[in-house]
Amino acid sequence: MAKDKKMVTAITSMDEDFAQWYTDICKKAELVEYTSVKGCMVIRPYGYAIWENIQHILDGMFKATGHENVCMPMFIPESLLQKEKDHVEGFAPEVAWVTHGGNDKLEERLCVRPTSETLFCEHYANIVHSYRDLPKLYNQWVSVVRWEKTTRPFLRSREFLWQEGHTIHATAEEAVAETEKMLNVYAEFCENALAMPVVKGKKTDSDKFAGAVSTYAIEALMHDGKALQAGTSHYFGDGFAKAFDIQYTDKENKRVFPHQTSWGVTTRLIGAVIMTHGDNEGLVLPPAIAPVQAVIIPIAQHKEGVLDKANELKERLAKAGFRVKLDDSENSPGWKFSEYEMKGVPVRVEIGPKDIENGQCVIASRWNGEKVIVPLDKLEETVAAKLTEARDGMFAKALDNMNNRTYACETMDEIVSTLEEKGDGFVKAMWCGEEACEDEVKEKTGVGSRCIPFMQEKISGKCVCCGKPAKHMIYWGKAY
Amino acid sequence: MAKDKKMVTAITSMDEDFAQWYTDICKKAELVEYTSVKGCMVIRPYGYAIWENIQHILDGMFKATGHENVCMPMFIPESLLQKEKDHVEGFAPEVAWVTHGGNDKLEERLCVRPTSETLFCEHYANIVHSYRDLPKLYNQWVSVVRWEKTTRPFLRSREFLWQEGHTIHATAEEAVAETEKMLNVYAEFCENALAMPVVKGKKTDSDKFAGAVSTYAIEALMHDGKALQAGTSHYFGDGFAKAFDIQYTDKENKRVFPHQTSWGVTTRLIGAVIMTHGDNEGLVLPPAIAPVQAVIIPIAQHKEGVLDKANELKERLAKAGFRVKLDDSENSPGWKFSEYEMKGVPVRVEIGPKDIENGQCVIASRWNGEKVIVPLDKLEETVAAKLTEARDGMFAKALDNMNNRTYACETMDEIVSTLEEKGDGFVKAMWCGEEACEDEVKEKTGVGSRCIPFMQEKISGKCVCCGKPAKHMIYWGKAY
Repeated sequence: MAKDKKMVTAITSMDEDFAQWYTDICKKAELVEYTSVKGCMVIRPYGYAIWENIQHILDGMFKATGHENVCMPMFIPESLLQKEKDHVEGFAPEVAWVTHGGNDKLEERLCVRPTSETLFCEHYANIVHSYRDLPKLYNQWVSVVRWEKTTRPFLRSREFLWQEGHTIHATAEEAVAETEKMLNVYAEFCENALAMPVVKGKKTDSDKFAGAVSTYAIEALMHDGKALQAGTSHYFGDGFAKAFDIQYTDKENKRVFPHQTSWGVTTRLIGAVIMTHGDNEGLVLPPAIAPVQAVIIPIAQHKEGVLDKANELKERLAKAGFRVKLDDSENSPGWKFSEYEMKGVPVRVEIGPKDIENGQCVIASRWNGEKVIVPLDKLEETVAAKLTEARDGMFAKALDNMNNRTYACETMDEIVSTLEEKGDGFVKAMWCGEEACEDEVKEKTGVGSRCIPFMQEKISGKCVCCGKPAKHMIYWGKAY
Repeated sequence: MAKDKKMVTAITSMDEDFAQWYTDICKKAELVEYTSVKGCMVIRPYGYAIWENIQHILDGMFKATGHENVCMPMFIPESLLQKEKDHVEGFAPEVAWVTHGGNDKLEERLCVRPTSETLFCEHYANIVHSYRDLPKLYNQWVSVVRWEKTTRPFLRSREFLWQEGHTIHATAEEAVAETEKMLNVYAEFCENALAMPVVKGKKTDSDKFAGAVSTYAIEALMHDGKALQAGTSHYFGDGFAKAFDIQYTDKENKRVFPHQTSWGVTTRLIGAVIMTHGDNEGLVLPPAIAPVQAVIIPIAQHKEGVLDKANELKERLAKAGFRVKLDDSENSPGWKFSEYEMKGVPVRVEIGPKDIENGQCVIASRWNGEKVIVPLDKLEETVAAKLTEARDGMFAKALDNMNNRTYACETMDEIVSTLEEKGDGFVKAMWCGEEACEDEVKEKTGVGSRCIPFMQEKISGKCVCCGKPAKHMIYWGKAY
């Protein structure tokens, strides 16, 4: 008990040390555990159950928009990786190389996929011949490897789980529409399921995916004012098709190059959820992805009838379709309260002898700490209402945080002084479109370009850096 | 059209060349495609959808028996792999080695997991301290890599998808019970969901998993009389715990070693389904795992009302919970019939102008080719009945095949002459328990031991090889 008790105490305060607070939650909510494989982690049952829920919802959205799942090999021969020039330049420095199979040296090195454009291209070259074969709307749920120097659970690890969509279309218009559609799917998912507001926009050229014509992204703002890229969607034009010689016969019987896209989100979404909603008691999970949506905690459980009643409530909530858990362990109610607060369970149902006498229970909401007394015959509807309220309240709170930490600035001096005064956040400022200015802003203010948002505003007419006529309003920020 | 047409013809007859027939189905039912990564394959949407259905059912069975999913890294440091002596000897010769991350040589080689006992052990050493922490019932759905020389789609590939259960228990009894329980889960899954009868038994010592005390397996018999190991479950005793120094404090406050198990099934189950149920028209899928359970094919679809009615039937079947597809493409009904026979869709619903006039449709069953005319108001119940009938009929047929091809033999000469006369199959014969006899049987008759079945019979009192008193009845056979 003493040891268990320690587990739910002693989490670093987020104001004191945000990075340590984050790591504490990852460990103490039992999301991950370190391994002897540097930069890689074990995703523990509670963390993996969150990922399964994310997968389940997103996979449904992908299938509803006509996508099919496939599975490509995890290895890419070096010669295949090299076929698209920009792509190999972007990824080769950070891939893991397999050089031996058993005791034999391989004739050609294989990299462990950092992403699978090259494999999909090879496959499309095999199966796409006619306009009738288009589009192909494929996705896969796998892990990928990038040999990062500095790693943090969920945010940056050498191996991470993700999905990668890869589609191929007859026309550029179709492919661009797909790129935008999937960015919207991601945004909708983040806002609805994760209760996390995002800014949708386009990356500047210096920040594009290796081999892409254009990269779109959704950017979220964490509790500490740093930005987090939560998902990306890339339009490739016909560059990969040309590099891999994918051609099809169109309706006029001409051989033409198709257009491609790819898009992905990763387990870093779990990191985003932690840093968007978490507090000093631990994790706060949006109901849609919470492994346990309601935990039932019996009070004075040794008294006659309490466990029976608690079990009855559990059965009722399970039957109503909630993910519910009854903790009838020997730990004290207080310990259990802390434990499930740490784990971010959205709703806690307390039931004790007095409650039973009065035909009621207590329902506490994790996100705002509110408690209500509820007649037992209103259990299901109240839990449903509290879960909806949690999602909506968490979203509104996160949106407030984002809005309060988004600053319009007209000069570089203003950027510096605003951030100094108010702390990190999104900076909205104008840009002429020149990479040199982008670099200079970063160098002199410490914030980099996050995206050119689709929702443009006119902060001023001039580039924040060079003062020449501005082309775009950009969101700038420090990023995870 | 001409090209499409070719796709559903020209499959090699299974009697002519079983291996080529198998490969033809893999390609022509669009389950897999080859890649430039030797020994690895693309699992295409139709093949992957089968795997998703297998996963979905099995995952439900695992969770219903108290298991939780986790995710371990895909890499294992060489020193970690070496900790258990038998284990490293068994696997080191067939692993892929990562030696470089980006441009840097790694300080220690990492292998791509061939299986994850070592990683689970390291994790258990971190998280198991007290009897209160036991048992841990973990599973993961991942891919693993074994550097095979000869490969075939699904049956043997360098990378394959699987699940690996890894559990840790306070006592040997509990661990042995888990090993047996999961073998039974596999057997139940194979028989119910895959309509594939299996023999449950124990592997001989020479055939055990590297590091196991005992290995249990389910063995199925393919259409050509060869055996296929469809799933395995291993009991480790406390050998791994000792090698990895996993200890816990028991109720008497003593430090003791826990007992472990692991168990797995792979995408080779898809190969087993092909070779158990397939015929010369192509794949025959058990309804539980069929991506499409009923395909609706409109006849004379250009005639007024046909497509509307076909759509109506599709909506009705979807609403009733079936996985249903309407093929309203421009291909001829004949082409469509062949296409979905090749793809093994369990039930075909035909609807044309005459049927509409008569308020009926035609329902054809893939597994036995039978057609019935069905009043439209009986559509849902007939499809349900036909799917149940398909599973039951396919199981009975496969069981017949297994029984007809299982031969009791008392001498080695009898084994040789029986197989010569009747073709490959299971041979039931007695064994003294000596490895030398096991080897001699294999050498002189060509069949190896498959398993010591739980259901023992007494074929004779003497070992089929040495004539000494027999200890076990064994199933022998040639194997995939």
